[in-house]
Amino acid sequence: MKIPSKFIENAVEQLASLPGIGKRTALRLVLQLLNRSEEEIELFAHSFMEMKAHTKKCLSCGNIADTEICSICSNPNRDHATICVVEDIRDVLAIESTESYKGIYHVLGGIISPMDGVGPSDLNISTLIQKVENEDINEIIFALSPTMEGDTTNFYLYKKLKDHEVIVTTLSRGVSVGTELQYADEITLSRSLLQRQLFQQ
Amino acid sequence: MKIPSKFIENAVEQLASLPGIGKRTALRLVLQLLNRSEEEIELFAHSFMEMKAHTKKCLSCGNIADTEICSICSNPNRDHATICVVEDIRDVLAIESTESYKGIYHVLGGIISPMDGVGPSDLNISTLIQKVENEDINEIIFALSPTMEGDTTNFYLYKKLKDHEVIVTTLSRGVSVGTELQYADEITLSRSLLQRQLFQQ
Repeated sequence: MKIPSKFIENAVEQLASLPGIGKRTALRLVLQLLNRSEEEIELFAHSFMEMKAHTKKCLSCGNIADTEICSICSNPNRDHATICVVEDIRDVLAIESTESYKGIYHVLGGIISPMDGVGPSDLNISTLIQKVENEDINEIIFALSPTMEGDTTNFYLYKKLKDHEVIVTTLSRGVSVGTELQYADEITLSRSLLQRQLFQQ
Repeated sequence: MKIPSKFIENAVEQLASLPGIGKRTALRLVLQLLNRSEEEIELFAHSFMEMKAHTKKCLSCGNIADTEICSICSNPNRDHATICVVEDIRDVLAIESTESYKGIYHVLGGIISPMDGVGPSDLNISTLIQKVENEDINEIIFALSPTMEGDTTNFYLYKKLKDHEVIVTTLSRGVSVGTELQYADEITLSRSLLQRQLFQQ
């Protein structure tokens, strides 16, 4: 596919550099953009530059915010003694949308993944340890993905935290709500048997 | 899903305005962009503005180009007496990639679609008629999508062209190469029966 304009080709390449967008999709999107007015395209393009220029990482938790301290960390109604450790901002949004967590967060900015060259020093870990050392923290909740990388990161964090006076918990694992039992994988099923709970009405 | 930064929310909305990109995908892409350097994001954003500023519609065929006349129309080795009528630039790319067409193109910029409010006057049709009247054109090939809108457009163009001395042809329709016959739809199958061809080895 030889695109007859180098400017369009350039725009296609830029869009196709985003994960999950191929060249064919990018071309479709670029041609759709080309139909818009110059002002609309300027708004489109500037939104990315402004985002980069004006968003900050919250100095306290690493969440993305427009201010030095994010709206969750600066909210006095939240429980600042409970910290939920997550991989990135999308996990914060997912947990926030459950409306069942009132503590604060700590965003690692990734998980330990030797395959991708991500080690502990690449993550926002030291500030978490500092917080536990200097502030009055009751509980640290590990809310990383239930993958090998997530478990590795959990284990690394646990080693760092276990000598401090803090309760370390992790999200429960078990069969998902709404799935049929026969389709649950064996590891999940055996774990949910071992970690069975008292029936509550 | 309440995004904690209005700049990120704005960027997400801009990306989600593209067809086929939902808010969740847009957020994933925006967070990936946010990890890039300021220069990279500037390159990304500028590519769209430059594309809008520098690309032109070929004065002859309506194809998108960096010059007044596109590289196909200005190529003396192509057959300028055969014009292939297509809906948009992607169709030009698709036909060019077959490497089996040596004529030139005429890009309509859409097809007649009353449901979407697109009428004949919104399309690049008059220049095609002018070309047929003023130049030495042998054949017009209709290469529009085999949909109701495509057929409507074909019929409209045919009415405009039938009093001129030009052969009007259309792409053959029939069973696709590589598909199993049992999965072909009835209309396609019955048409490919009616329009059967002498067997050639």
